[in-house]
Amino acid sequence: MPGYSENKDAVQKRLRRIEGQVRGLQRMVDEDKYCIDVLDQVAAVTKALQAVAIGLLDEHLSHCVADALTAGGGRADEKVAEASAAIARLVRS
Amino acid sequence: MPGYSENKDAVQKRLRRIEGQVRGLQRMVDEDKYCIDVLDQVAAVTKALQAVAIGLLDEHLSHCVADALTAGGGRADEKVAEASAAIARLVRS
Amino acid sequence: MPGYSENKDAVQKRLRRIEGQVRGLQRMVDEDKYCIDVLDQVAAVTKALQAVAIGLLDEHLSHCVADALTAGGGRADEKVAEASAAIARLVRS
Amino acid sequence: MPGYSENKDAVQKRLRRIEGQVRGLQRMVDEDKYCIDVLDQVAAVTKALQAVAIGLLDEHLSHCVADALTAGGGRADEKVAEASAAIARLVRS
Repeated sequence: MPGYSENKDAVQKRLRRIEGQVRGLQRMVDEDKYCIDVLDQVAAVTKALQAVAIGLLDEHLSHCVADALTAGGGRADEKVAEASAAIARLVRS
Repeated sequence: MPGYSENKDAVQKRLRRIEGQVRGLQRMVDEDKYCIDVLDQVAAVTKALQAVAIGLLDEHLSHCVADALTAGGGRADEKVAEASAAIARLVRS
Repeated sequence: MPGYSENKDAVQKRLRRIEGQVRGLQRMVDEDKYCIDVLDQVAAVTKALQAVAIGLLDEHLSHCVADALTAGGGRADEKVAEASAAIARLVRS
Repeated sequence: MPGYSENKDAVQKRLRRIEGQVRGLQRMVDEDKYCIDVLDQVAAVTKALQAVAIGLLDEHLSHCVADALTAGGGRADEKVAEASAAIARLVRS
C-alpha cells in the first residue's frame, strides 16, 4: 500500500477541488476575464498542487521510507535516494 | 478584450489537458499507485500550469501593457507595476 | 543605461547583504550547525535573490521595455519576447 | 554531527563558488550590464543554491532522519515531520 493510504480520501478531496479550480480557469478564459485575474488563479492552483505534493511526500517519508529504514538492508539507502530525487524534481518544478 | 484573446483556443486546449491530468492523478490515487509516481505526475501538472501562466503573461505584456505604454499617460506606469506584482506572485507560487 | 541605473545603490546594497548571508552559510557549515537550520538559511538567501530578480525585472519593464514600446518599431516586440523569456527562466529557476 | 559532515568540504566549495557568483553579480551591476544578463545570472545563482539545499536534505534524510528511524521511539516521527516542514519551506522558497 502507498504511504498515502490512510489519507486517501483527503488527497482525493484536494484533487477534486483542484479539478474544479482548473474548470474555473476555463470559465474565466471563456468569459474573457482580465489576464492578471486569470494569472492569479493559475498561481492559486499551482500552490494547491504543491500542497498536495508536500502532503504526499510527508506520508511517503513517514511510511514507505520509514518502513524501509526500520527493516534495514540495502533497500533503505535506495529509498532515501529515490525520495531525494523526487524532492529535487519538486523543488525545480 | 484580454491579451490572450487571439490565443483563446490554445489556452483552453492546455487547460482541458491539465484538467485531464488532474483526473489522471485521481485515478492514480484510486489505484494505489506508488507515491513517487504520483509525485512526479503532480510535478508534471505544476509545470504545465506554469507554462500556461508564462504564456498568459507574455500575451499580457505584448498586448495590454504594450497598448497602455503606447497610449502613454499615468495608466502605463500602473500597468507595469501591476504586471510586476503578478510576476512576483508567480515566481513565489 | 540599464533599467536599474537609478536604483544601482539599492541593488548593490542587497547583493552585498546576500554575499554576507552566503558567508554566514559557510560559517554555519564550518561550525557544524544543524542541517535544518542551514537549509532554512539557504531558503532565506534564495528568497533574497528572487527579490533582487523581481526588482530588476520591474525596472527593466518600466524603463527598457517601456522605452522600446514608446519608440515603436520592430524592437518593441523583440523586447517583450526577450522579457517574457527571462520571466520564464526565473519562474523555473 | 550534522548529516553533511562527510561532505563538508564539497558543501563549502559550492558555497564559496556561490559567494564568487554573488560578487560577480555586483561587478555586473557596477559595469551597467544589461538587465536580462544580470537576471539570468541571478537565476543561475538561485539554481546553485537550490542544488546545495537538495544536497543537504539528501544527507539529512540519509543520516539524521535514518538514524532516528533506526533508533525508533517518538523522536523518529518528530524528525520526519521536521524534515517535511523544511521541504515545504524549500518548495515555496
